[in-house]
Amino acid sequence: MSKIPVGILGATGMVGQQYITLLNDHPWFDVRYVAASPRSAGKKYEEAVAGRWQLSKTYAPHVGSIKVEDANDVSCAVSAFKKKKCAFVFSALEMGKDETSALEEAYAAAGIPVISNASAHRWTPDVPVLIAEVNPHHTDIIPMQQKKRGWKNGFIVVKPNCSIQTYMIPLHALVQAGFLIKKIIVTTMQAVSGAGYPGVPSLDTIDNLIPYIGGEEEKSEMEPLKIFGTILNEEIQNAVMPKISACCNRVPLTDGHTACVSLAFGLKKPSIEEIKKVWASYKGLPQENNFPMAPKQPIVYREENNRPQPRKDRDTDKGMAVVIGRLRPCNVFDIRFTALSHNTVRGAAGGGILNAELLKFKGFLR
Amino acid sequence: MSKIPVGILGATGMVGQQYITLLNDHPWFDVRYVAASPRSAGKKYEEAVAGRWQLSKTYAPHVGSIKVEDANDVSCAVSAFKKKKCAFVFSALEMGKDETSALEEAYAAAGIPVISNASAHRWTPDVPVLIAEVNPHHTDIIPMQQKKRGWKNGFIVVKPNCSIQTYMIPLHALVQAGFLIKKIIVTTMQAVSGAGYPGVPSLDTIDNLIPYIGGEEEKSEMEPLKIFGTILNEEIQNAVMPKISACCNRVPLTDGHTACVSLAFGLKKPSIEEIKKVWASYKGLPQENNFPMAPKQPIVYREENNRPQPRKDRDTDKGMAVVIGRLRPCNVFDIRFTALSHNTVRGAAGGGILNAELLKFKGFLR
Amino acid sequence: MSKIPVGILGATGMVGQQYITLLNDHPWFDVRYVAASPRSAGKKYEEAVAGRWQLSKTYAPHVGSIKVEDANDVSCAVSAFKKKKCAFVFSALEMGKDETSALEEAYAAAGIPVISNASAHRWTPDVPVLIAEVNPHHTDIIPMQQKKRGWKNGFIVVKPNCSIQTYMIPLHALVQAGFLIKKIIVTTMQAVSGAGYPGVPSLDTIDNLIPYIGGEEEKSEMEPLKIFGTILNEEIQNAVMPKISACCNRVPLTDGHTACVSLAFGLKKPSIEEIKKVWASYKGLPQENNFPMAPKQPIVYREENNRPQPRKDRDTDKGMAVVIGRLRPCNVFDIRFTALSHNTVRGAAGGGILNAELLKFKGFLR
Amino acid sequence: MSKIPVGILGATGMVGQQYITLLNDHPWFDVRYVAASPRSAGKKYEEAVAGRWQLSKTYAPHVGSIKVEDANDVSCAVSAFKKKKCAFVFSALEMGKDETSALEEAYAAAGIPVISNASAHRWTPDVPVLIAEVNPHHTDIIPMQQKKRGWKNGFIVVKPNCSIQTYMIPLHALVQAGFLIKKIIVTTMQAVSGAGYPGVPSLDTIDNLIPYIGGEEEKSEMEPLKIFGTILNEEIQNAVMPKISACCNRVPLTDGHTACVSLAFGLKKPSIEEIKKVWASYKGLPQENNFPMAPKQPIVYREENNRPQPRKDRDTDKGMAVVIGRLRPCNVFDIRFTALSHNTVRGAAGGGILNAELLKFKGFLR
Repeated sequence: MSKIPVGILGATGMVGQQYITLLNDHPWFDVRYVAASPRSAGKKYEEAVAGRWQLSKTYAPHVGSIKVEDANDVSCAVSAFKKKKCAFVFSALEMGKDETSALEEAYAAAGIPVISNASAHRWTPDVPVLIAEVNPHHTDIIPMQQKKRGWKNGFIVVKPNCSIQTYMIPLHALVQAGFLIKKIIVTTMQAVSGAGYPGVPSLDTIDNLIPYIGGEEEKSEMEPLKIFGTILNEEIQNAVMPKISACCNRVPLTDGHTACVSLAFGLKKPSIEEIKKVWASYKGLPQENNFPMAPKQPIVYREENNRPQPRKDRDTDKGMAVVIGRLRPCNVFDIRFTALSHNTVRGAAGGGILNAELLKFKGFLR
Repeated sequence: MSKIPVGILGATGMVGQQYITLLNDHPWFDVRYVAASPRSAGKKYEEAVAGRWQLSKTYAPHVGSIKVEDANDVSCAVSAFKKKKCAFVFSALEMGKDETSALEEAYAAAGIPVISNASAHRWTPDVPVLIAEVNPHHTDIIPMQQKKRGWKNGFIVVKPNCSIQTYMIPLHALVQAGFLIKKIIVTTMQAVSGAGYPGVPSLDTIDNLIPYIGGEEEKSEMEPLKIFGTILNEEIQNAVMPKISACCNRVPLTDGHTACVSLAFGLKKPSIEEIKKVWASYKGLPQENNFPMAPKQPIVYREENNRPQPRKDRDTDKGMAVVIGRLRPCNVFDIRFTALSHNTVRGAAGGGILNAELLKFKGFLR
Repeated sequence: MSKIPVGILGATGMVGQQYITLLNDHPWFDVRYVAASPRSAGKKYEEAVAGRWQLSKTYAPHVGSIKVEDANDVSCAVSAFKKKKCAFVFSALEMGKDETSALEEAYAAAGIPVISNASAHRWTPDVPVLIAEVNPHHTDIIPMQQKKRGWKNGFIVVKPNCSIQTYMIPLHALVQAGFLIKKIIVTTMQAVSGAGYPGVPSLDTIDNLIPYIGGEEEKSEMEPLKIFGTILNEEIQNAVMPKISACCNRVPLTDGHTACVSLAFGLKKPSIEEIKKVWASYKGLPQENNFPMAPKQPIVYREENNRPQPRKDRDTDKGMAVVIGRLRPCNVFDIRFTALSHNTVRGAAGGGILNAELLKFKGFLR
Repeated sequence: MSKIPVGILGATGMVGQQYITLLNDHPWFDVRYVAASPRSAGKKYEEAVAGRWQLSKTYAPHVGSIKVEDANDVSCAVSAFKKKKCAFVFSALEMGKDETSALEEAYAAAGIPVISNASAHRWTPDVPVLIAEVNPHHTDIIPMQQKKRGWKNGFIVVKPNCSIQTYMIPLHALVQAGFLIKKIIVTTMQAVSGAGYPGVPSLDTIDNLIPYIGGEEEKSEMEPLKIFGTILNEEIQNAVMPKISACCNRVPLTDGHTACVSLAFGLKKPSIEEIKKVWASYKGLPQENNFPMAPKQPIVYREENNRPQPRKDRDTDKGMAVVIGRLRPCNVFDIRFTALSHNTVRGAAGGGILNAELLKFKGFLR
């Protein structure tokens, strides 16, 4: 099988770099098209990122010599599409919401599927917010989206905020096992890479933390309801539960978002041991079908009382597993636990690639 | 008025050092006696702390030349007491629980009042756990404690865990204003100085956090109930509310514990503006009587959405104020907010000194 | 004596904030005029810095209510000068070199003395680069500067780069004691506050260091030669010694630049003990005349082998002392030692204020 | 070819853990024997390291189930040797010098070759201090060592201090190309993992650095002379050049030692471009013979002016390459540059494994 050629929009930014390296040896996809801001356009990729490369892994040599195109110019991508150099794009655009929204629509309208990391379309009712393990059936809305908008080949799917990916899969596993979740109070301690580069100033993080991340709490409280929602009338209707209260903090570490979660179940309440069993045996569609980017075990539970720890656990299973510890009864709700995931892998580029694998598996990408 | 001579047990440790510097120019108390482990005993204080001094402020010259005594030898303190060099002691002992418990009792039995930072006696029913603003009336148990144990001049009072001092005063202010608090879910992000020196290894805090602090959550959930308790039958009977669920994390910063608090009131629920008013106008007995260590305004509310921040706010009003921000409705409970206090000042030595001021004010120290 | 009214250009930036707080209770100077970029102009100072205040100390209440003027508009300052609200200005401008250079000249031409932190005029031959302890006699060039340029009351003096202030005073003390210094190899480890705010991204400093600071090494190698220079033909002629090789690194800490210095003397070589004596007894003109901002002892030597340390030593004597340790023979040159100073106090605003005190002492400011 | 069974002494410590993971898939060696302190002896390896594991990579499953032996009991190793479970040992012992020295000799006397990370035998005249690229010919002393001491199969080789490995290979490459080096002044900024676990307290590294590492400077100045030495009279005679002055600092980062090096050549001085060429084309015996642990290119030069950076560059080529940047003329000596290597890989376990590969290649291990 020859690989599907893919493009990266926003290829020089932090998430774009993460896409490039994670796709270095991907068995299904091959980066053949890179686009960024006009400032980078025209340079080779290796020139465009010289002095700005953030990762310890590097890009594949053939990517280094690709000419960077202007991400605002959809016609470049269309031309690459015709030359079979870009069957779809990952969008890691870092513009304002309205610009991103319009530009992603322009790509889709031009026939190019868009798998986006941006938040612009998360509340567009016919755009699914996908976590491949949690709501793979939401891809069913894609034909409705295309029909309604008159798009042929193109469409838009998005992934949720990086912060909630730390606990959505374990919550989903419990719901799927029959345990309704009614209320969640969650406090997150989030890594600086979540704000991109240059992002958070050193003077804000040395011997300090910032008890606020603009917009993050609202996203964390609302996006899960769409992900748990159902397709009705060609739109995704939000779930009404769980009620979520999120408090999001920026702490001094590079990668890995940690969440301290307290939750109340409905009438049926699992024991601590039942929960561990549910998590240990949980497999989603990506696991059942061995998607390349899928972690073998999406939920890894650690019994040591001082885990998960960001530096030691974030890279578990290529940075795609959610690592959990400290599951115990809650004095106020039913249970509480601490969860961790890698925010620029599972929470960003890796999650996007897994979504692309899901879409290819379902026949939406060729 | 001549100053009261005081002794410090555990004077060379981190909290001991903090006591020494905070008492540098104290108008009521004067450090005249220092005791530590046998290893330091016999040296001058300045020799004992050479190469181990942790603070940027230094000790008063006259303290540097005091000879360090063996803290295990109560007779030294008794002798100093007789020479009017040690009217009472601050205990910053760092031994095991049973040892500390027995040693503090030995001092008290020998006629020397003990104002302790150690956790050993926090659950002794006739020993009050004092926050000078919150439960100053708990000093009423001291005569009962003395009578029951046959102690004359000596007694023991303790202060609570450093972590809860970040939110006990604001909670107390609300309760006092008539708003019953039923449930609290709190997540803390605690500084490494809370573990003393050497304490937390660098390899655990660089690009990392530790989602666990041994014993801290239990203390955080139980101690408030004793502080809110009532004296009955010569013991402090715990309050039954609020129910507290605490999740305690160690984060990479030197000083300042931050707490993200969600809480549910009883039937009477204040508005956000009412709460701000309650906090702004709150004064406790230390403020009403201008105790030297008391912050002028014990609760400082900051309107900026990115405060409180440990490095910028922990030193507010000599490190004795609780700084709060981000008060807003909670999706699940009634309200939530973020609070900060300096763990080795308000949460340790400064809180101990304020307790001593309270005890002097009430006539227990002379 | 009534205080001299002073203005701050660039008052809302990091160094500007440092000036404001250091002048809070200054016995000679009173901040009455603040100017910043057009973005801040028109706001009250407290509004202009809300959410951007970097320090744990705050500004005096009367400064909070001063209206911020546009620093580009010299006529505002002239008007304030006439109203006796601004006898001279501290320049903490953060523009490009040419703009700063022209603007500072415009203030001076308009009759307003400029005491600058900017690097723009450091290589202007008739502008002295002052360290008040080292080259106070370089103020002699001010009348020549004024005459040549046709300025009446106005003039420009600057202070050197923050990095070299860590070792210039100890070097000067040795030279003054008769020990010629021929060669210096110095490696610095510099705090992030040296780059201002937002400055260095967190992703560059967490679990990392940056082995390069643009322009810093050149400044470190050249500026000392001007400071050690002599006035000749109405210009400052650079000294020819010492030859300096500087390697400057950015390390993950907020404040305090550390320098590891190896140096070779001329024929006359002091012993380690002689050097310690020279440093211990060293006093400059600011010490001899008790300038308010002057450290009592400008060079503090610590015998512990693990000092100086930035967090513990940078605030020594209000952040104005240079703290030295580890003086020992060098295997290759004659001696080596490690020195530390507070880069935003001694190395920036505090050094500027000390220069102003020197100028007032010499009659240049009234 | 079946793999050679190896043992690890000090297997539960930080360097021991690094050995275990680096040997996970080694083509020549297989960990079959692990020994540690009596506290761990008798437990399975996975139990012994539970809660103490420091790395993000984990150990091979078969290692987890090996029973830990008491490292002090040489007879266990002898028994394993007879059962073909331990042909030689890597020593990552963390005892005092005399104990380590005696114990390593006991293993060698018992017929078990010891490849050591400890510093105990670095100054034993008949024990070579090996960097596989620099002085592979020093293995010639092994037969002399064995003969003199009456050892049959056993012997001891050691590796040098982690700090100097950052610049020894680039220096050697220049010397080998005919450029004599006379003087070096080097300042290092070293990672906390160099002190093991628990090692450096967080209170010493947050917003701070420590300008001293006990014994490190002496080692850095002397060990290169032995490595550059020659075998004469059955001993290694130290070289007399270069003269080295080292200043060693502990900075707040996990892994990766950085060195700022200034050096003076003899009469023959290469140009900057010549040096880059020498480094780019340099290959040692490990490269020429494709040792499994050898980096393909032992010296990697980066042209960006802000590299090398520890977090981004330490893992270059499995953590075995030395990464250099900022090569430029020195104002005082001839040239200067900044070099980086991974202190627990190249500077510890990886370097030890490379030495073992060299010894196997030369027939000393079977």
